[in-house]
Amino acid sequence: MSLDKKQFASDNYAPVAPEAWEALKRANSGHAGAYGVDRWTDRAVDMLKQVFEIDCSVYFVFNGTAANALALASMCQPFNSIICHELAHIQTDECGAPEMFTGGAKLLTIGGDQGKLSTSELEAAASSRKSDVHWSRPAALSVTQGTEMGTLYSVEELAAIVDIARRNGLGIHMDGARFANAVGALDVAPREISSKIGIDVLSLGGTKLGNPMGDVLLFFNPVLAKNFQYRRKQAGQLASKMRFLSAPWIGMLEDGAWLRHARHANTMAQLLAAEISGIVGVEILMPVQVNAVFARMPKTVINQMHDLGWVFYTFIGDDGVRLMCSWDTLESDIEEFSSSLRACMDAVL
Amino acid sequence: MSLDKKQFASDNYAPVAPEAWEALKRANSGHAGAYGVDRWTDRAVDMLKQVFEIDCSVYFVFNGTAANALALASMCQPFNSIICHELAHIQTDECGAPEMFTGGAKLLTIGGDQGKLSTSELEAAASSRKSDVHWSRPAALSVTQGTEMGTLYSVEELAAIVDIARRNGLGIHMDGARFANAVGALDVAPREISSKIGIDVLSLGGTKLGNPMGDVLLFFNPVLAKNFQYRRKQAGQLASKMRFLSAPWIGMLEDGAWLRHARHANTMAQLLAAEISGIVGVEILMPVQVNAVFARMPKTVINQMHDLGWVFYTFIGDDGVRLMCSWDTLESDIEEFSSSLRACMDAVL
Amino acid sequence: MSLDKKQFASDNYAPVAPEAWEALKRANSGHAGAYGVDRWTDRAVDMLKQVFEIDCSVYFVFNGTAANALALASMCQPFNSIICHELAHIQTDECGAPEMFTGGAKLLTIGGDQGKLSTSELEAAASSRKSDVHWSRPAALSVTQGTEMGTLYSVEELAAIVDIARRNGLGIHMDGARFANAVGALDVAPREISSKIGIDVLSLGGTKLGNPMGDVLLFFNPVLAKNFQYRRKQAGQLASKMRFLSAPWIGMLEDGAWLRHARHANTMAQLLAAEISGIVGVEILMPVQVNAVFARMPKTVINQMHDLGWVFYTFIGDDGVRLMCSWDTLESDIEEFSSSLRACMDAVL
Amino acid sequence: MSLDKKQFASDNYAPVAPEAWEALKRANSGHAGAYGVDRWTDRAVDMLKQVFEIDCSVYFVFNGTAANALALASMCQPFNSIICHELAHIQTDECGAPEMFTGGAKLLTIGGDQGKLSTSELEAAASSRKSDVHWSRPAALSVTQGTEMGTLYSVEELAAIVDIARRNGLGIHMDGARFANAVGALDVAPREISSKIGIDVLSLGGTKLGNPMGDVLLFFNPVLAKNFQYRRKQAGQLASKMRFLSAPWIGMLEDGAWLRHARHANTMAQLLAAEISGIVGVEILMPVQVNAVFARMPKTVINQMHDLGWVFYTFIGDDGVRLMCSWDTLESDIEEFSSSLRACMDAVL
Repeated sequence: MSLDKKQFASDNYAPVAPEAWEALKRANSGHAGAYGVDRWTDRAVDMLKQVFEIDCSVYFVFNGTAANALALASMCQPFNSIICHELAHIQTDECGAPEMFTGGAKLLTIGGDQGKLSTSELEAAASSRKSDVHWSRPAALSVTQGTEMGTLYSVEELAAIVDIARRNGLGIHMDGARFANAVGALDVAPREISSKIGIDVLSLGGTKLGNPMGDVLLFFNPVLAKNFQYRRKQAGQLASKMRFLSAPWIGMLEDGAWLRHARHANTMAQLLAAEISGIVGVEILMPVQVNAVFARMPKTVINQMHDLGWVFYTFIGDDGVRLMCSWDTLESDIEEFSSSLRACMDAVL
Repeated sequence: MSLDKKQFASDNYAPVAPEAWEALKRANSGHAGAYGVDRWTDRAVDMLKQVFEIDCSVYFVFNGTAANALALASMCQPFNSIICHELAHIQTDECGAPEMFTGGAKLLTIGGDQGKLSTSELEAAASSRKSDVHWSRPAALSVTQGTEMGTLYSVEELAAIVDIARRNGLGIHMDGARFANAVGALDVAPREISSKIGIDVLSLGGTKLGNPMGDVLLFFNPVLAKNFQYRRKQAGQLASKMRFLSAPWIGMLEDGAWLRHARHANTMAQLLAAEISGIVGVEILMPVQVNAVFARMPKTVINQMHDLGWVFYTFIGDDGVRLMCSWDTLESDIEEFSSSLRACMDAVL
Repeated sequence: MSLDKKQFASDNYAPVAPEAWEALKRANSGHAGAYGVDRWTDRAVDMLKQVFEIDCSVYFVFNGTAANALALASMCQPFNSIICHELAHIQTDECGAPEMFTGGAKLLTIGGDQGKLSTSELEAAASSRKSDVHWSRPAALSVTQGTEMGTLYSVEELAAIVDIARRNGLGIHMDGARFANAVGALDVAPREISSKIGIDVLSLGGTKLGNPMGDVLLFFNPVLAKNFQYRRKQAGQLASKMRFLSAPWIGMLEDGAWLRHARHANTMAQLLAAEISGIVGVEILMPVQVNAVFARMPKTVINQMHDLGWVFYTFIGDDGVRLMCSWDTLESDIEEFSSSLRACMDAVL
Repeated sequence: MSLDKKQFASDNYAPVAPEAWEALKRANSGHAGAYGVDRWTDRAVDMLKQVFEIDCSVYFVFNGTAANALALASMCQPFNSIICHELAHIQTDECGAPEMFTGGAKLLTIGGDQGKLSTSELEAAASSRKSDVHWSRPAALSVTQGTEMGTLYSVEELAAIVDIARRNGLGIHMDGARFANAVGALDVAPREISSKIGIDVLSLGGTKLGNPMGDVLLFFNPVLAKNFQYRRKQAGQLASKMRFLSAPWIGMLEDGAWLRHARHANTMAQLLAAEISGIVGVEILMPVQVNAVFARMPKTVINQMHDLGWVFYTFIGDDGVRLMCSWDTLESDIEEFSSSLRACMDAVL
């Protein structure tokens, strides 16, 4: 894989953001208690509580798959089911992690435009066969903000979804792999789209944001946090040198770098969309609301771009592509990409 | 927890070793493929194969608990059992991770002096009730080198254990959280106590060695490695920015830092044992073969040392303590600790 | 629930068939070895091998849910997936048993007319994302014969499905809850639609056939049967007084009662369909190929029939009903039901 | 296995008791609702509530392994542990069923004379490492009444055990595979050694008592019963033709046959012990309190008895045997066995 240039394949291709790196470096000093009994972890926890304006339970884990699966395991017995969008990461890209960590819960997938849960399908899934012992009883909803399709739920849309889930007795998990991008784009306080609205547990992504690794679980519902430290340990998600997982968050949060980087990535996606939408033969497929651009272009053009060393994923059929911007994407990267694309397209038209 | 001084609580209290840190820093440059498709991961894998002189399958995971549990899961069905020492980390300190990741396998614990498996008890456990459908069928042996008690198996002792396991059809896992200390102490090539002797899968510890986090699984038995990449992913152990998990290994391996640091820790443990064994009232409990010193001292002295800010664990009853040395332990740290201990002891005698 | 009359709700509403009962009674004599070491179990196993004309491995379990889930567990690791029809019993009516017993495998559901797997969708599901570590790797296909919709695969249709599964490396499970009905309807030797065609494991249903309880697993693929006795025991599916689970099969098989009863139920379904299809306002929805009739009738009529004490399930929307015939359904039962239905329908038209 | 004579191998070698058989026969009449919606199941549930004098939740399952494992699963998360005697059936004879159904809970075995839990060891196990995240947190106690060694807890002994468990926050499961024998021997109301004393869930054995198969779970603690019907279904333990699992209980309970048979088996064990204890060279090893006799006799004698067609298990070393009496053991069976044994013994002395 040629990576001489910036890529638009994924926001996890980017290196560590400088603020996270500096904090990591500062934490690498002297001895520290293991398994989270250290001052960097304490500090990161405190900062997260401040940022979310709530005294929640905070658990660092190694990645998003673990964060999502363990959050869902805290809500589900093996005979339960979890409602999610058919394009949710937990359904399409976690190799059955939720099924395994819950001991056998079933994912009930529903549809909805632009990667967002259809409220009518949610209502149906949450209320159907509810007292039927032959059917995995719905116990949790997982909602992704920003979505896998680069779109956003408005505060009102989230509230409507949460309301349906609540009325049907579901625990509510938010997959926030790109939560920072959502906060930046909606320009709301983090709590406005999480604790305040009724989310029970948030998987707050750090890696796509610019950390080297690690996600954080924020339990706004204390009942679900009960004994969670044991679940994390058993799952192989308790870092011994925890400071190296927690410290980057200090760097990201202390001067607002997390939102600065997220907003930058969002802005770059807007720019990228604007640039390529001007190319004849390219069609933007989804509203660009966070840091992803979904577009359609001819298969031959995709192949040529790949041949030129541009790395990105094809998703929807043969001619749909996903382009992700990250904290380090520059305007010049976008220009370079757009020029390449324009040249390829000119050649085929 | 006061950590103004070096501690002897655990080798995971130490910071990142400079060689690992520099490699981490070098890896933080430009875009890189996710999930292990990057040149740092390729390089680390190649180096590990060179160091072990075998073309094995190499998987980076986030920590030792995950490494151990997933290795065992590759050998066991839920109806199987795993034979290990009653003091093995998988039995005493992993909160049931092997049981969970295997889907319900039972740990059959046996005894043995100095933390080492008794061959007679192993033979009995491996061969008893073997065709009894009511009993979890033994399928794996887990052996720890160096042991939880700071001791070592000789090459011959390992060979004897492996022989029993093989004759009884068991897969063989080695918990190598302190494998480097063992290699350093025995002065053998790594393969002499792993692949050559018949180990199927090695959990090679990195964190206690001086890395920020992460263990490596080396599958010398290719059959067990089949589809392991899926198991790792589902378990939440596949790092997206893999380079930050793999790169420290490059730094540790490229000029032999891993063994240099391990040998240093071993030497410091010898020095510590020599120092405190000269104090009246202190008794060394185990041969000091890697980087741990197990000693007995009066409970009141233990309490006083804790009051003075010395952090270490008490293990065997009220008056047994474990003192761990790490890559950054200095002679002066040992002198400081020994002086404190001598003073406390003088006060009570 | 008023059960003064025969019902068409399910073939498991029926009592024990006389041949099964007599065999059960004969087995209730003197002491017998536990856990299957008894002459009735030996005899039943021998008879099953004769009937299937193959020296397969035979395991009695308590019910169909267990049979299906354990068969699939013998083919799957937790990171695998199982392809099945979206209307398969394992997907719709087993409360996540396959997910639990496999430790987290995912069910990949596909469509297909008349409850039968679409070969094109099967090909796509079996071959898509096959080397993508983020996706639960397909390892098994489960096919139901006769289907949940009362239809049948022809021998050729089964062969085509098996071929796709084989080419894609899938293990093949057949849910044969109504296998006898299928054999009876197709008028083939049992092996023609199981072992000969490449089925690895068959769940052979006994309860719907006329036994008091219990299913049998027939492993035609000996590799999958390895250590299965442990899996059955751990799953709570090893009967101590096994003879009472196995003996009814003797009665059912020794003079061909199993096929006689199955054919009778099939014939009754034909008769029922013929009777009610003549009633204006009633529409037969599926070909009647085994012992089920799926029909559409007005919701008000359904309600009236329920009020009259007729018990049956509504399935497809508000106006679709499923009517099952069993070994003890009489022509007079069908006449009584049809008369009731005709009267209800007359009243609303 | 020659079974021309009555055997003392296990109480599950016996056939179905006449009262259970008659009830089974009566239930085999006409159509009945599936999955427990039938009048026999209703009646059996009512009778169990009357016998236990409490409005508990009652669930029929297929066998004791399932009953025990599912009861424990209702109390435990995967990161929990279950305290039990080292000779408990769940530890020694269920092939890891509790580990699997709990998703990975660990069994913490403790000792105690005569198969009964040591209160001091229980206190230690229940209170040790309680807030240590590296240790599977104790959540349940399983106590067996009568024990695997044919002994009994007095009401006071049970109360002491329950008290320790309660103070330490454990759920309490009673394995009552031979609960009827215990009730009969202690001459107490069933509730005196179950609900009244603080047992949360009782596995009430039916098979060893004289039923063809099946155990019952009685949840005295309604919190634990919540959603248990789903757990049973998912576990493959929900009988479709439930009446054939529940009806035998009607026969056993309606005229007190369950206790009559249990007391008879107990009396036979007393007689057997009296007979063989008079034989020189035979030593009774345990108090005979229910229906088991544990005895020591020379290995050569054991072999001769086996050669003569007597089936029984050897347990404790080479020369310990277990002899079980059942509902159908006759005085003449005991005389025959004793005569054989005396003759064998005479020959070797």
